[in-house]
Amino acid sequence: MEQQNIVVIGCGNVASYFAHTFHSIGHCIVQIFHPNIEKAKALADLYQAEPVCDTDKINPHANLYIIAVKDNAIIEVVHKLPNTQGIIVHTSGSVGIDVLNKHHRKAVFYPLQSFTKKIVLSNRNFPILIESYNQDDIEYLTKLGKDLGNEVIFMNSQERSRVHLAAVFAANFTNHCIKMAYDIMIKNNHQPEMLLPLIKEIINKLNYISPQQAQTGPAVRNDYAVIEKHLQMLKGDQEIQHIYQVLTQHIQQTS
Amino acid sequence: MEQQNIVVIGCGNVASYFAHTFHSIGHCIVQIFHPNIEKAKALADLYQAEPVCDTDKINPHANLYIIAVKDNAIIEVVHKLPNTQGIIVHTSGSVGIDVLNKHHRKAVFYPLQSFTKKIVLSNRNFPILIESYNQDDIEYLTKLGKDLGNEVIFMNSQERSRVHLAAVFAANFTNHCIKMAYDIMIKNNHQPEMLLPLIKEIINKLNYISPQQAQTGPAVRNDYAVIEKHLQMLKGDQEIQHIYQVLTQHIQQTS
Repeated sequence: MEQQNIVVIGCGNVASYFAHTFHSIGHCIVQIFHPNIEKAKALADLYQAEPVCDTDKINPHANLYIIAVKDNAIIEVVHKLPNTQGIIVHTSGSVGIDVLNKHHRKAVFYPLQSFTKKIVLSNRNFPILIESYNQDDIEYLTKLGKDLGNEVIFMNSQERSRVHLAAVFAANFTNHCIKMAYDIMIKNNHQPEMLLPLIKEIINKLNYISPQQAQTGPAVRNDYAVIEKHLQMLKGDQEIQHIYQVLTQHIQQTS
Repeated sequence: MEQQNIVVIGCGNVASYFAHTFHSIGHCIVQIFHPNIEKAKALADLYQAEPVCDTDKINPHANLYIIAVKDNAIIEVVHKLPNTQGIIVHTSGSVGIDVLNKHHRKAVFYPLQSFTKKIVLSNRNFPILIESYNQDDIEYLTKLGKDLGNEVIFMNSQERSRVHLAAVFAANFTNHCIKMAYDIMIKNNHQPEMLLPLIKEIINKLNYISPQQAQTGPAVRNDYAVIEKHLQMLKGDQEIQHIYQVLTQHIQQTS
């Protein structure tokens, strides 16, 4: 694909990722918009883009506008964008495409990935879920995503929101279980990183078997002596104790 | 270390792992014990070991006896083992060393890892937590573990049980969150493996930042619109809905 002119709306994790990767494969980041000009400038400077803090200054002649702001801020941004012949995409898993109805060429470009600034992704071939009512725009966004090395999957807004729900369990809740584990280690003066080979192996198994088949531990073994001992050890923190109990019971009921 | 004669008690995931790895670095698996002789034979045949289903037939002249049975079965096995000059270890995270009190040379050799038969570990350098009251035996078990490529850490029974508790969060609960995510995908006719790049990235981040720093998603953003939408989507399964609610609240309270 020839060089595209791209405006990025937002300076967060998703905005930073797309600004970086689109620039890295030769597209032009025309502008970075953020209400705080310092934030806009910090990101824009990396890609020789123009920082913009006033929506009236957004260039109406770009090929693509990537809205990567908090879900509840999308609607406000949408209404302040200029009229344009370019495609306007948002990047949210749970917001429908119709929030963009004001614009002619609207689409969704949702990366099924968790980004953190300054951390280089281990792998760029995650899926991007796209949506558009226009066949030409679907083809354009497919090409755009594939050029980045991603798998591109068409999915409507309702389906996408279900995948986003699954992603909360797979990513956010998984990460929180690890956080609780780390907290127990730290509280007992052990290096939490001692758990990393174990955690990595849980993920390695998913290359071969389902998480249902991979389950081990006291819950799935119905080892009530260990479970009872663990609940005793957690009696100083009722919330963690409750989480232990709820997850243990659910493993037992569903395995 | 010169070739050691090892008796393995049990045929499960841990027993199979240690039989395999000790054999692979040149130790002799003398016997495999299991009350079901067919199970004992299936494992023993792999390492030219003798299958045994009668505790009276257990060879008393081995250097090392590895008890790798369910936690609640350890005590029964301990009392049926022959008197021996060899070291008797159990491999449990949550059972104290004192369950082995009947024996002279008792120790613990607990792998901080989750094993599944037929799945090759991605990495063998996980920690082994050892315990013994005898300095010579500590040195022996340290050498034994290091020869396998493991990190070896001395830890008493109480500390070990806390690490085991952390491991339940890090491995079993993490795996269960992934299972719930997979179930949502399957229920909606999506390939659950679509989530794998995301899951792998959650783990990749732990190489650089803490899980607290790595958290993303609606809970940590206090995005109540998305949280409410997700709870609505889960209203058909009250248990999953409750888990969503409990974990979301706990992320919000602790981040």
